[in-house]
Amino acid sequence: MAAGEPTLILAEGFSADTHYGKTMRGVLRYRRQDVVAILDSERAGEEESGMPIVGDVAAALAFEPRVALVGVATQGGRFPPPWRQILADCVENGLSVENGLHQMLSDDPELRPLADRHGVELRDLRRPPDGLDCPTGENLEVSARIVLTVGSDCAIGKMTVSLELDRAARERGIASVFVPTGQTGIAIAGWGISVDAVIADFVAGATERLVVEGARRGGELLWVEGQGSLVHPAYSGVTLGLFHGSVPHALVLCHRAGTTEVEGYPGHPLPPLADLVRLHEAVSLRARPARVVAVALNTGGLDEATAVEAIEDAARETGLPTADPVRHGAASLLDAVLAATG
Amino acid sequence: MAAGEPTLILAEGFSADTHYGKTMRGVLRYRRQDVVAILDSERAGEEESGMPIVGDVAAALAFEPRVALVGVATQGGRFPPPWRQILADCVENGLSVENGLHQMLSDDPELRPLADRHGVELRDLRRPPDGLDCPTGENLEVSARIVLTVGSDCAIGKMTVSLELDRAARERGIASVFVPTGQTGIAIAGWGISVDAVIADFVAGATERLVVEGARRGGELLWVEGQGSLVHPAYSGVTLGLFHGSVPHALVLCHRAGTTEVEGYPGHPLPPLADLVRLHEAVSLRARPARVVAVALNTGGLDEATAVEAIEDAARETGLPTADPVRHGAASLLDAVLAATG
Repeated sequence: MAAGEPTLILAEGFSADTHYGKTMRGVLRYRRQDVVAILDSERAGEEESGMPIVGDVAAALAFEPRVALVGVATQGGRFPPPWRQILADCVENGLSVENGLHQMLSDDPELRPLADRHGVELRDLRRPPDGLDCPTGENLEVSARIVLTVGSDCAIGKMTVSLELDRAARERGIASVFVPTGQTGIAIAGWGISVDAVIADFVAGATERLVVEGARRGGELLWVEGQGSLVHPAYSGVTLGLFHGSVPHALVLCHRAGTTEVEGYPGHPLPPLADLVRLHEAVSLRARPARVVAVALNTGGLDEATAVEAIEDAARETGLPTADPVRHGAASLLDAVLAATG
Repeated sequence: MAAGEPTLILAEGFSADTHYGKTMRGVLRYRRQDVVAILDSERAGEEESGMPIVGDVAAALAFEPRVALVGVATQGGRFPPPWRQILADCVENGLSVENGLHQMLSDDPELRPLADRHGVELRDLRRPPDGLDCPTGENLEVSARIVLTVGSDCAIGKMTVSLELDRAARERGIASVFVPTGQTGIAIAGWGISVDAVIADFVAGATERLVVEGARRGGELLWVEGQGSLVHPAYSGVTLGLFHGSVPHALVLCHRAGTTEVEGYPGHPLPPLADLVRLHEAVSLRARPARVVAVALNTGGLDEATAVEAIEDAARETGLPTADPVRHGAASLLDAVLAATG
């Protein structure tokens, strides 16, 4: 979404869901100033993170939104059927729609003409740019230090960790840039490519473009938003293409404390953190070997004492600086990254 | 290509190239009975593997082709400019065109109407099927034994190894099926999905479909055509998505004897074979751990004594049964796979 546009977040059925509602949560945290309301008929009249929840588009109009942002990330990236009416209601009430799912609204045979009639835009954040190709090697020539967040699973906070580290670095006066690689990151930062939506052969090439662009935007320290996990049975290919295309100098390993299985994939256990560290380092390109230099532990939902204990356990298991940047601030992780990357 | 269609292989500028001409070579080896001529103006009048080479489409007509198969695989999957005239000549002379590059001919604003006027087909082998999604877990329920070829680089013979092992297994009366995952495999077998051309998020899901389909076709032993390499700076994402989506019980590691660097990517060294074995096993899903059970060494171009020495070296380095199935037959590799997979 463009900065300053009053935004209604569409989160029908998912506003209380930390996994599929991650776009909503990311935007509420990092672009809150533009959000005017959240739509979820199951929670109409309640609040979420201090923001009013409305039951339908008619009720949202009192908050004068100009844009409706699809705030959910469904598995497979398609719209649940009840959403069609909500999207049509938005368009008919003059709201542009910003969508990060794989299903492209601007190709939709009903919504496209409806949007044209009402003079509003259908912006598909995951639409790949034209002319993607394989990497040229320009990624290895970028002079910035490149740090990628990796993790044990999807939706555990890789984007959040990158954003927190970027903010902490900028607060120290470092020429730091967050490099968005997915729909929520793009919605927050206003640029980027959703690398999971490009043709599989071009994931690394698309990522190369992003690190080159991050440097062009003045970044001397780039925080590349990670995607998926090397051990995820559905998304690991995106993870490795992003890893090799972004040619990171260092990795920050993200994990949600206490989880032992891939979410939504019963029977797929997560390896111990120390194994994940070794696996990532082993699969890094020999032309740009990368070390895991810190662990970012998501302790959301734990009480303080349990969280501190989980952080100490992870630090002991991996031998690496470990912190929850959301709970305790990003300073110690940033120190670890700067020490490791010179 | 459909079995029995007299086929002209288009290999302009690449008929002598073992890397980019791999589609031509695969079809010449495994569907030779359908090929009538090869087009390459740089070698008109010569022969390639006993097949006549013509300089243009007009000269090819003497061989009465019905289909022109694009026999090259260019980097990035686009047509070099001189090809447009060749493709138009084919269409104007009544030949359907079968194309495995990323660039879709059936979307081409000039070729599409031209083909319609001349009543011929433009078949894009890499066009993904509709309705792709993430894996559902059905791959883990397939009762067949699944063997994936992996390798140190692209275009070193993973498809060939899978085809040779499939042929050897069928000759022993085993219900064996080759599972095509790329344009050449599809051109040879007449079915499959080019997994490098699907949306990155759906590589594993597309591969799941293929192993389910291989079992539906009666396969009790499936030979999944590998793609790319875990250490390839451009294509590793496809490799890992294919690996995790095909949930192999066993891996056959393919390597071209003597190579030490990723072809076309100077500065990207290949790890030693023993490291590659460990890397593949480490990155296999915990829900379906896979071991490398044999090494297929491509000794093309070496004399017999040097080839035997290279095979012995690779066997010693990895501690695994090693052979060149093209030079010495696939029997010993098949024995190794059957012994390891029960």
